[in-house]
Amino acid sequence: MRNQPLNYCAFVMNTPSHIIHGLWRDPEGDQLRFNELEMWIDLARRLEAGGFDAAFFADVIGLYPDFRGGPEFHEELGLQIPSNDPMVIISALAAATENLGLAVTLGFAQSPPFQFARQMATLDHATKGRIAWNIVTGANPNGWRNLGWEGMPAHDTRYAIADEYLEVLYKLWEGSWDEDALLADRASGLHADPSKIHPINHVGEHFKCEGPFLVTPSPQRTPLLFQAGSSPVGRDFCARHAEAQFIQSPSPEDARKQIDETRDLLEKHGRTRDEIKFFQGLSFVVGSTEAEARQKERELEEKIDADGMVAHMGGAIGVDLGGLELDDTLDAQSTEGVQGILGWLREAAGGGNPTIRDVLQLMSRRTRVTGTPEQIADRLDDYRQAGVDGVNVINAVIPGSYQEFIDHLMPTLRERGLAADGYRPGTLRNKLFGHDRLTERHPAAQYRGAFAEVAA
Amino acid sequence: MRNQPLNYCAFVMNTPSHIIHGLWRDPEGDQLRFNELEMWIDLARRLEAGGFDAAFFADVIGLYPDFRGGPEFHEELGLQIPSNDPMVIISALAAATENLGLAVTLGFAQSPPFQFARQMATLDHATKGRIAWNIVTGANPNGWRNLGWEGMPAHDTRYAIADEYLEVLYKLWEGSWDEDALLADRASGLHADPSKIHPINHVGEHFKCEGPFLVTPSPQRTPLLFQAGSSPVGRDFCARHAEAQFIQSPSPEDARKQIDETRDLLEKHGRTRDEIKFFQGLSFVVGSTEAEARQKERELEEKIDADGMVAHMGGAIGVDLGGLELDDTLDAQSTEGVQGILGWLREAAGGGNPTIRDVLQLMSRRTRVTGTPEQIADRLDDYRQAGVDGVNVINAVIPGSYQEFIDHLMPTLRERGLAADGYRPGTLRNKLFGHDRLTERHPAAQYRGAFAEVAA
Repeated sequence: MRNQPLNYCAFVMNTPSHIIHGLWRDPEGDQLRFNELEMWIDLARRLEAGGFDAAFFADVIGLYPDFRGGPEFHEELGLQIPSNDPMVIISALAAATENLGLAVTLGFAQSPPFQFARQMATLDHATKGRIAWNIVTGANPNGWRNLGWEGMPAHDTRYAIADEYLEVLYKLWEGSWDEDALLADRASGLHADPSKIHPINHVGEHFKCEGPFLVTPSPQRTPLLFQAGSSPVGRDFCARHAEAQFIQSPSPEDARKQIDETRDLLEKHGRTRDEIKFFQGLSFVVGSTEAEARQKERELEEKIDADGMVAHMGGAIGVDLGGLELDDTLDAQSTEGVQGILGWLREAAGGGNPTIRDVLQLMSRRTRVTGTPEQIADRLDDYRQAGVDGVNVINAVIPGSYQEFIDHLMPTLRERGLAADGYRPGTLRNKLFGHDRLTERHPAAQYRGAFAEVAA
Repeated sequence: MRNQPLNYCAFVMNTPSHIIHGLWRDPEGDQLRFNELEMWIDLARRLEAGGFDAAFFADVIGLYPDFRGGPEFHEELGLQIPSNDPMVIISALAAATENLGLAVTLGFAQSPPFQFARQMATLDHATKGRIAWNIVTGANPNGWRNLGWEGMPAHDTRYAIADEYLEVLYKLWEGSWDEDALLADRASGLHADPSKIHPINHVGEHFKCEGPFLVTPSPQRTPLLFQAGSSPVGRDFCARHAEAQFIQSPSPEDARKQIDETRDLLEKHGRTRDEIKFFQGLSFVVGSTEAEARQKERELEEKIDADGMVAHMGGAIGVDLGGLELDDTLDAQSTEGVQGILGWLREAAGGGNPTIRDVLQLMSRRTRVTGTPEQIADRLDDYRQAGVDGVNVINAVIPGSYQEFIDHLMPTLRERGLAADGYRPGTLRNKLFGHDRLTERHPAAQYRGAFAEVAA
């Protein structure tokens, strides 16, 4: 029986309406203040005081595909538009905290690898090793066209380019500077040892980068790597590169199947079965009694913009669900590239093609846990037994959903051994895995020392 | 006679050795801590307490060209390698201050325009309108090869690409969202008015960008625009786009000539003569008596790495000066693209080709002001009379050079009306110009309302 504590991330986005739509209207929600640094600093302090492991910033660099024939619905609801960049607010959160991990999302089309490597290494220094990167491959065509592409490359092409992007990053982060290159010796006047700083001279199909890297080895070198791929290619990519996977299984049973498969893939790629932590996305409604919790859930559901939930799901699978009725099924609407999510929906709906009603159910209820602290702890224990290592906590309101989690759930979770009593020291990777750097089995490790000249 | 106060920027870079080389060895310098956020937060707080208008972060995204045949000298001295990204540390400085402007440097090859526009607009919100951008066009070939280019494009080509880059940014910052697009209306549930959010559909020679922009109109919309071009093409670019120009004239007389020419260019481009503020780069050695100041200057000169100064100047003009003697001249060494700086050196050396000794003099002394507070105030008044609006203060040590400026010069500068008594309210642009947004005469203004559909 698995009984180590789970890890907890706050799953947020720098936007008024991230996942549970319509809640920015709630007087208890601060989401309308998302442009203000103070709102995020306040949240980071609350999360650290409450024992959360990290704030995880999702991001999307363009509009979701149309709903009801256009972007107007998204814009009226604030459904991930407007949205701000997550990376540039991280240092303010780092300065306000000491232990909280800070995860940002970025796809390779957003930044040349040299620029991104430097920004992240700067943040790894600034956070003293608490930075993480959620690797995405960009699923919204508008995002690609914002970034100068003619359109979205095919799914497998995106992963192939991402593979080369990571290769360049690993060369810069792990290979360009030897561990002892920095001297900073006031007496001799030698700041660094040039024989231990190397250009990488990367020339590939999609990227070129000369080097040397400009940033000294940072506490983690490579930031902690999150990924959320669910297609076969995506999961293979994840098993090769990631150290944490974000999953949204509709049940512990489904999570177990998915996790076991990915752990098998880890072994196939020469890594050990524990080299990825699995974070299940969940939202919570907690009451002192089950009746109270159910009442709170009914009140929440009245506040949720149901059309917004359908629009978001349609956008995610690339189908405009705006013209469908609740009992219409999704089959005839499927388009290229949605197999992964549609397959999951079919399975979750019991094998057949899901209806819009099924989608709403899935969106609203399957990843929500409602009950007393004890009941919720039981459910989390089920996930833990299924192999889940942590929870990505989805909010209805900021900061209220997290403060409620901290005040009403954390005490019970700690009692039950489902949450840790305090932080482990050092970097985010050390807090989660017990070491500061990627293991020797990770593909990035091959670039350590790879650019050193052979001694004459 | 011009008698408005000057503005003051701290001219820094996220690196151990920016301009006055070798001083990281000084026990009073904190530059070896450049990786630490705390060092920069401490500096920002000192600058604001002391009345500085802005911290101006220079940046270079690659190694300077070789000195003595390779990059080893730069690496040993820490001459702008290592260096960290400036943009990602800004939010921490914003959270620690209320009035200090924060300027970052970036060239177009570092970031697709949509990504950069979003990062800067996020920072304009986060800083409440205190962000500025120093537009550069990238003069180090290694930087271009780091960013995936085969090599450095020709000088005028770089400016042509920068022009289109700015066009895309202006469309996103000024045109995509109408001023009243954001509603954030809890009662109606309308977050924004879709009829006031527009794609930009930019298709140009170098960039494509669909839009709409993802960030709501920020306090300044377009960040305050700095530029430092000195070639004819660069100065024309500056006169069209910039609101502040960084100059490094060797004398007030030279500054006057340069400033008058650029003000003429402003008029040529339909802007008014006061639409650019000129910031002269200067370093200071202050003493209670002139003798004390001269003694401090001698002590400083002993600490300066003279070879480092030559290596830096050679790198800036694209010539490896490592094999030359002090009395050798620069003429035979000149290469493509250095005309601007070499011309300036020639002029400053009295018309002929400068020797290495001249270069050293220029680097070390011509932009250094040494004396008592009164003498320094006199010199700054000379610059003011020549049309200079502000000073970019170059440091020998961080934070010591700035603390000394604040403690020993600012009181006299305030007495003499050469420094303001406090901050004007609002955005950085408002503090400097008295308005939050670019004027109607600026080329960005043409995109305001340009993408709105014509009513039926």
